[in-house]
Amino acid sequence: MCELLGMSANVPTDICFSFTGFLHRGGGTGPHRDGWGIAFYEAGGYRDFRDPHPSVRSPIARLITDYPIKSHIAISHIRQANVGQIRLANTHPFTREMWGRTWCYAHNGQLEGWQALPLSFYRPVGDTDSEHAFCWLLAALREGFPEAPELVACDAALGERHRALWQRLHCLCETLRAKGVFNMLLADGEFLYTYCSTRLAHITRRAPFGRAELSDAELTVNFAEHTTPDDIVSVMATEPLTSNEAWVRMVPGELLIWRQGRILARLTPDSSAFAP
Amino acid sequence: MCELLGMSANVPTDICFSFTGFLHRGGGTGPHRDGWGIAFYEAGGYRDFRDPHPSVRSPIARLITDYPIKSHIAISHIRQANVGQIRLANTHPFTREMWGRTWCYAHNGQLEGWQALPLSFYRPVGDTDSEHAFCWLLAALREGFPEAPELVACDAALGERHRALWQRLHCLCETLRAKGVFNMLLADGEFLYTYCSTRLAHITRRAPFGRAELSDAELTVNFAEHTTPDDIVSVMATEPLTSNEAWVRMVPGELLIWRQGRILARLTPDSSAFAP
Repeated sequence: MCELLGMSANVPTDICFSFTGFLHRGGGTGPHRDGWGIAFYEAGGYRDFRDPHPSVRSPIARLITDYPIKSHIAISHIRQANVGQIRLANTHPFTREMWGRTWCYAHNGQLEGWQALPLSFYRPVGDTDSEHAFCWLLAALREGFPEAPELVACDAALGERHRALWQRLHCLCETLRAKGVFNMLLADGEFLYTYCSTRLAHITRRAPFGRAELSDAELTVNFAEHTTPDDIVSVMATEPLTSNEAWVRMVPGELLIWRQGRILARLTPDSSAFAP
Repeated sequence: MCELLGMSANVPTDICFSFTGFLHRGGGTGPHRDGWGIAFYEAGGYRDFRDPHPSVRSPIARLITDYPIKSHIAISHIRQANVGQIRLANTHPFTREMWGRTWCYAHNGQLEGWQALPLSFYRPVGDTDSEHAFCWLLAALREGFPEAPELVACDAALGERHRALWQRLHCLCETLRAKGVFNMLLADGEFLYTYCSTRLAHITRRAPFGRAELSDAELTVNFAEHTTPDDIVSVMATEPLTSNEAWVRMVPGELLIWRQGRILARLTPDSSAFAP
């Protein structure tokens, strides 16, 4: 199984602490030796770093921990290959452009019958179930929504304008979950979408900030020393990354829509309710 | 003016030597302080590294010179901003997926009336003339050629199958050249396309390999120590990068199609001839 790491924050934040713990799972404490990648939405744009080698030995991964890149959304993935060879084209995250935004996606799990998902607008470059599903999903969104819903300042109005889009996205995720295991991180630079099929947990850190201890490496950070009282930083991971904090586990079929560190909307299979 | 650097090789080759010289122009010997990027087509896929900071002070650029990435096609760009702010979204190279291939593009020059080029399939993420032109150009290719021409082993057959596509590409480049200055590097993982509007030079290195001295940094390399007799490596740059080799300057309106270090086809405005 692969592992996912995500971040949503209301201020440009480096993900070094979480990435350090996550990195150790890439061939260190974990079996995920088949490549890794990390994507950042910075104030000025998008970039990603990918490497088909284990993250614990990757000079590029070391660069990321040494050269803190501050972003408001980040998505990372370490891979244990099941479908598709170990090569760069099969290394998450995957990206495509839609509506003039760079969409970034990483998947944990395995799908059955994914080859039958019809492709149109976007085509996979590699040969994984994950990228195929991404191409299918994004094209389905694009067909339903040729233009992006308008971005407005008010959260309630933002939710209202995006309701149909997010319900469609939830429906597409549910279709993929029915084909196997589909834990997903997806972002477009404005929103981070986290969808849980089996395993995904999150934590929101805000004032008063405390200390956190990594589960996978001997490292403790006192967030109070690195933050201001208004900062809100949420981190999502396949398994909780720290040993002394209360992570929230998502439930199967749950889609959370994050913006600036906070949950803007929550969609579940049982409820068409659009909370919070 | 920005500067371009490209490479096409028949064996996975690192571009460290050329990139070192090129890098020095990014705020060192040259005025190109507004960001840089480099893209690699490796055996297993595509990746790029981009930074909106001057390349001479960029830790990511240092990584690229210290950690030789071997590729058969590389495209690099250092930027002196004219249209569009200095930010990551405006930093070349730009990429889009077409036909299940990652297309990569970098532009040197400035266009007039680029806002009127109609957009359809692809939309710019940033706000440069360069990315707008790329989105227009790629969509125009896609409209004319919904599927990629078949790749075959024989060069002559390959050229025959791609003739219409390459003529269309040349025509699109000529349209852009009529709008200002349009020197371009474009690649799809199979071919590297170099188009000259005003300034672009190239050199092909093959056995017997000799020594080369960088123009912009005190560095000499003896390629004979790093190559085998069958290697063919071609490098393209806005201005020749070495002081002791005979670079060939392209002529305005010339499109060269490179594969595995060699020129596969040459298209010019004066001739519909399709040589060599």
